[in-house]
Amino acid sequence: MTTQDLPATSSRRRRNIARCRSIGDLRSAAKRRLPRAVFDFVDGGAEDERTLRGNEDAFSRLRFQPRALVDVSAVTTETTLLGAPSSLPIVVAPFGAAGFSWPRGDHASAAAAAAAGIPYAMSSTASVTLEDIARCHDGRRWFQCYIFKRREITAELIERARSAGFEALMITVDLPVGGNRERDYRNDFSVPFRYTARNVRDFAFHPGWALSTLFHGMPTMANLTSFEGVSDVNTAASTVGRNYDPSFDWDDLEAIRDGWKGKLVVKGIARGEDAARLARMGVDAVAVSNHGGRQLDGALPSLFCLPEIRAAVGDRMEVFLDGGIRRGADVAKAIALGADAVMIGRAMLYGIAAGGGTGADRAVEILGQELRRVMQLLGAPRLADITPDLIARADLMAAL
Amino acid sequence: MTTQDLPATSSRRRRNIARCRSIGDLRSAAKRRLPRAVFDFVDGGAEDERTLRGNEDAFSRLRFQPRALVDVSAVTTETTLLGAPSSLPIVVAPFGAAGFSWPRGDHASAAAAAAAGIPYAMSSTASVTLEDIARCHDGRRWFQCYIFKRREITAELIERARSAGFEALMITVDLPVGGNRERDYRNDFSVPFRYTARNVRDFAFHPGWALSTLFHGMPTMANLTSFEGVSDVNTAASTVGRNYDPSFDWDDLEAIRDGWKGKLVVKGIARGEDAARLARMGVDAVAVSNHGGRQLDGALPSLFCLPEIRAAVGDRMEVFLDGGIRRGADVAKAIALGADAVMIGRAMLYGIAAGGGTGADRAVEILGQELRRVMQLLGAPRLADITPDLIARADLMAAL
Amino acid sequence: MTTQDLPATSSRRRRNIARCRSIGDLRSAAKRRLPRAVFDFVDGGAEDERTLRGNEDAFSRLRFQPRALVDVSAVTTETTLLGAPSSLPIVVAPFGAAGFSWPRGDHASAAAAAAAGIPYAMSSTASVTLEDIARCHDGRRWFQCYIFKRREITAELIERARSAGFEALMITVDLPVGGNRERDYRNDFSVPFRYTARNVRDFAFHPGWALSTLFHGMPTMANLTSFEGVSDVNTAASTVGRNYDPSFDWDDLEAIRDGWKGKLVVKGIARGEDAARLARMGVDAVAVSNHGGRQLDGALPSLFCLPEIRAAVGDRMEVFLDGGIRRGADVAKAIALGADAVMIGRAMLYGIAAGGGTGADRAVEILGQELRRVMQLLGAPRLADITPDLIARADLMAAL
Amino acid sequence: MTTQDLPATSSRRRRNIARCRSIGDLRSAAKRRLPRAVFDFVDGGAEDERTLRGNEDAFSRLRFQPRALVDVSAVTTETTLLGAPSSLPIVVAPFGAAGFSWPRGDHASAAAAAAAGIPYAMSSTASVTLEDIARCHDGRRWFQCYIFKRREITAELIERARSAGFEALMITVDLPVGGNRERDYRNDFSVPFRYTARNVRDFAFHPGWALSTLFHGMPTMANLTSFEGVSDVNTAASTVGRNYDPSFDWDDLEAIRDGWKGKLVVKGIARGEDAARLARMGVDAVAVSNHGGRQLDGALPSLFCLPEIRAAVGDRMEVFLDGGIRRGADVAKAIALGADAVMIGRAMLYGIAAGGGTGADRAVEILGQELRRVMQLLGAPRLADITPDLIARADLMAAL
Repeated sequence: MTTQDLPATSSRRRRNIARCRSIGDLRSAAKRRLPRAVFDFVDGGAEDERTLRGNEDAFSRLRFQPRALVDVSAVTTETTLLGAPSSLPIVVAPFGAAGFSWPRGDHASAAAAAAAGIPYAMSSTASVTLEDIARCHDGRRWFQCYIFKRREITAELIERARSAGFEALMITVDLPVGGNRERDYRNDFSVPFRYTARNVRDFAFHPGWALSTLFHGMPTMANLTSFEGVSDVNTAASTVGRNYDPSFDWDDLEAIRDGWKGKLVVKGIARGEDAARLARMGVDAVAVSNHGGRQLDGALPSLFCLPEIRAAVGDRMEVFLDGGIRRGADVAKAIALGADAVMIGRAMLYGIAAGGGTGADRAVEILGQELRRVMQLLGAPRLADITPDLIARADLMAAL
Repeated sequence: MTTQDLPATSSRRRRNIARCRSIGDLRSAAKRRLPRAVFDFVDGGAEDERTLRGNEDAFSRLRFQPRALVDVSAVTTETTLLGAPSSLPIVVAPFGAAGFSWPRGDHASAAAAAAAGIPYAMSSTASVTLEDIARCHDGRRWFQCYIFKRREITAELIERARSAGFEALMITVDLPVGGNRERDYRNDFSVPFRYTARNVRDFAFHPGWALSTLFHGMPTMANLTSFEGVSDVNTAASTVGRNYDPSFDWDDLEAIRDGWKGKLVVKGIARGEDAARLARMGVDAVAVSNHGGRQLDGALPSLFCLPEIRAAVGDRMEVFLDGGIRRGADVAKAIALGADAVMIGRAMLYGIAAGGGTGADRAVEILGQELRRVMQLLGAPRLADITPDLIARADLMAAL
Repeated sequence: MTTQDLPATSSRRRRNIARCRSIGDLRSAAKRRLPRAVFDFVDGGAEDERTLRGNEDAFSRLRFQPRALVDVSAVTTETTLLGAPSSLPIVVAPFGAAGFSWPRGDHASAAAAAAAGIPYAMSSTASVTLEDIARCHDGRRWFQCYIFKRREITAELIERARSAGFEALMITVDLPVGGNRERDYRNDFSVPFRYTARNVRDFAFHPGWALSTLFHGMPTMANLTSFEGVSDVNTAASTVGRNYDPSFDWDDLEAIRDGWKGKLVVKGIARGEDAARLARMGVDAVAVSNHGGRQLDGALPSLFCLPEIRAAVGDRMEVFLDGGIRRGADVAKAIALGADAVMIGRAMLYGIAAGGGTGADRAVEILGQELRRVMQLLGAPRLADITPDLIARADLMAAL
Repeated sequence: MTTQDLPATSSRRRRNIARCRSIGDLRSAAKRRLPRAVFDFVDGGAEDERTLRGNEDAFSRLRFQPRALVDVSAVTTETTLLGAPSSLPIVVAPFGAAGFSWPRGDHASAAAAAAAGIPYAMSSTASVTLEDIARCHDGRRWFQCYIFKRREITAELIERARSAGFEALMITVDLPVGGNRERDYRNDFSVPFRYTARNVRDFAFHPGWALSTLFHGMPTMANLTSFEGVSDVNTAASTVGRNYDPSFDWDDLEAIRDGWKGKLVVKGIARGEDAARLARMGVDAVAVSNHGGRQLDGALPSLFCLPEIRAAVGDRMEVFLDGGIRRGADVAKAIALGADAVMIGRAMLYGIAAGGGTGADRAVEILGQELRRVMQLLGAPRLADITPDLIARADLMAAL
């Protein structure tokens, strides 16, 4: 990555980031820096945001019963994901909003993942091209792809990902149509920005973001600019999904499976039976996800889908989980209930918005430190020691 | 319908309605336009309003587990209700408050239902006559009837409904006496309006509503004006139920059943055994309802009555549900638990109060759009695909 | 009762009382009229007031499933309690605080009970003598008695009750020592009043109460003034229980049972096994009670004790319940779970404090009206129709 | 103890302490006297403080069903702990924060425990030496020890404890690394104090504490000052655990067990299987604890661990519990669920911070008075009468 790709973080901002001790602190810093409409786009969910809140609440309802007197002097968070090593059971989730958070912020996530030794899943709607990412970062790279109505777009994107050496393809299946994200409508959040009176005032109160964005330009969906009639109308956040193909089904996925030689991950699964069918198809991993509460409001928190899905697939495929990860303890809870890894979206975006590359690094660092400490306090020096019995049975709380 | 029947919606108000993206937005707009006492009459419930809130909370406690990879390019919400087609599994519920929300607002609901292709259930206490409705609207029309102490009123109303071509009769059985609606008492809400100092000030702060109502006249119970001694004392919202007959029982219903050749719906059922008895009597449909929390405070949310009632009647009769429907997702949840359709009361009234006919159309449009989107996100392209297994089992949340 | 016994209610206050439509309204009126320290003494409970709140919350957690199409034109709340008729399944609970709420306020409860045709249970710590009550009121009268360390006091009180013609004796067993009522300590609430700066200011802000109390004199425990060394030190609210006998046990109760020819009620029972033993002893009724949350904070809400206790005693004895009754619906819920009647303490005290005799009458009137309406809405024209199946099973709410 | 060891409590402060009627009142007094950073160090927990709050909430969720008609004139709270008598089922928990709350505040706890006749568990990180404690107080003394990376420190501390006549050794096993206490980081709380602008202002607003602390000197970890390189860097609250040995395991504990002739207690156990293994090893008692919510946020409230642990060890060892004890009723609940005694940490610290020795005495006095009253109200005159059936079964609340 070259410095002109990702604007540097000022030293004052770097000091602020260093003082952030939790993902919550990074979120607060992001909220201060971003215009309200941009923050809401990152932070918000669909309709009444019940699933958004439910994802986080689910973690807070589980309780640990730690093991005592285990030698935890040598804790390791290392694991194998999709056949290759990862320093943490964490994957950077694909998200299209990085460019709104920091100019060409996708480089920040990719660099942070590479530096930390964890996989980076690039979004097909990122603000930089997949070839750029491949050229600038030597870490593990996965490519997330939506299914477009014009199928040739999907085909060409997959071919470009193959040719750029992405090791895994991640197909998102919970976005046949866009979610009903009312915050964005209320904020008139769309691209290209309509410079309404409210927007301009919002920007004026956040000069750091505004000057930087004016200087570097509004983000585009760089991977799609070569497709006529897509990128220009499709960049509107409020029209997300308009070009996605609601007819995409099991047969279409099978065709993709047949044409892709690398690893294949399907993201957006909430049912054991769907996961089992994917396993039978030879898909390598499933990502339990409700798109961070941005699609179907009322969807079951992804953590609560996890036991059913792990039971359905056994050890025939890897299981990832996203939605609501804000603490190292959340990572441990997901693993205890059957996940191989979690994927972090907002946690990373808060970091990027708070301080570009410095913030992205800090987000991964915080979660890693918290996870290691939690493993020591749990008496679980390796990830394999984070077993379901570390989670207290519900009847201990309710049945007294 | 002629324009003098339903005052037009100003263009400014039409723009406001277009910006409303949810029933909640329409409610906010209604709250701004209506005097407090009128809004409370529409919005409020009995006593401590536990059932009122419970109806909405019940929906928020259910969680979806959507199906992935289903072709949802062709979603249809069409269904058959009482033997005839409906474009949505939605019926406009009967309510007497439309005239307070907009001059002759009943025409707004009837027109919106006809335009959307869904049934309209007219209230016997509407502000326009049933003959007016029959003359002005060519959609599907059902007639709701209370049982009056003077039984000849009921008989004559039913005869008029038959002669005006209403296809179904809906008998409300949860109002043997009026509910204890304390907001109305606190607001001195009654008809004819006593012009107390508080009322006048309340009106002065809502000039749009006040001028329109002064110009078009206070609403009356138009169907009842021909009955001496009923309509004048009976129009008081706070004396609702005073003329209803608490002795009405199974035998009386049987007599109505025998005398009515069209479809018969009984509204206000909360128990499986009552629904089963209605099925044995040959009643065509039951409406699971607690009168929107306006009658017995403490009644079980109607959604929670639904599984027991569907189990009791099997497929021998249709089951409708009202109470708490604010989102398309709520419609889907009711269907998943066994309803054939939902009935919308407040959702429609908020629309009417916010913008007359434009608001009524918008209320149906919003719920239809939301329902279609939810069906796509659920992987359920037809209503028959919204099966109970799409609702997460409670133990997934509680038993971890 | 003579007018000098109970100060009249002013016409302005009578109008205010008439506008109160719920016990909650009476509570608000009481809060305005009483000094803070006095209101807290009436309204408060022990320690963290968990049981106080729990009593009310318990009712709010039950949900009705009403019966439809029952003839409810002739509703009756009449019942038989302790072998004699009562117009309502309601008993006025014994309480010592009436005199603080209104000069000689005990006459207000006694008169309201007599006028309504329900039993009045007089407290041994009332502000008027039992002979006064017997002389002034011709309704049903029960006498509540604490067990004093000086047993001759208890014996003499019981003898006086017998000779004054009280039909039942109610022994309170949940006050072996006084509860830890921290509001009273914080408010320096004690008798004789120490005129602290805070008290005087509190009184000055409540001149209606203060002038009336100054004119009529601070209340005393009139039944106890003949016992040297008891009434003077014992009138302090904050020292409640100091003279009660913590050694009182089953044998002592047996002795009382043997010496009293009238009906015997034991108040303050929370366990089925205790109730069953009382039934075997020949006690006529048990009052399920936690002393309104004023004694053991953390005690199970009395409503939740009820099913176990009814199951333990079958129909061998009557079961009353107090604690948290604020609505007619609460009375119906208690009956559905097995109570023969409820006892009202605070509901009556709020009425007395709000408006003396007028307020006391209004409290009974409100609960009676609400109960009749609820019975009509439940499809339960007689108390015997309020069966357990009218309460929704918990799994209807939780197990979806 | 000599007067120069523990600064006296002023007469004004003694009057304030006398007015405190609950541990909550002592907490409020402590909050007023202590600088914010110091109060937070005492009061706070790890990360989101879910376990901190959960510990207290757990007690509030249990409900009593008291026994009636038991002679409770002679209540005794006496018991036997580790083979010797205690006047209460309460042990003063080890804590290092006493010196921050009051100059040499450890003497206050030791003296209060001795005066009350209950055991005092001294912390290895106390602000006074164990030899000082042994010389000044003749009550029962236990010595708590952390396991240091430099094992010779642990060995020497244990030897000093033996030689100073401490009867029991308590090994803390839930601190292999320090917890993530974010309040301390936010407050820049560390020792030696960095005199930041914020700290100085904080001190200026709490002159009572500041003058006293300046006069008597900042507390040190007196037991560790003889070990070069430990006490100076190790006194920082924010670096707690940095010198503790995360490799300490079952074998190491066995070695300690073999070398110590007195009673042995292991503190920080949350699982039945761990407690059973300790019982097999011959450990005398286990302290169920999550370190007051200061270590693993998300740990199950210790009260909810208790039934499993008691079931696992039967009567082979004593079981203590700490975490969330704020009322005498909490002590009774812990005993009902299987504890032999509770340990009080914050409850005592609030007392010390509020008023030195006077406050420490008051904390024990309040809990003792509350416990005796609760036992009387429960109908349980001896601790053995506090049986599990006094706790209401959960289904009484949930299953209606």
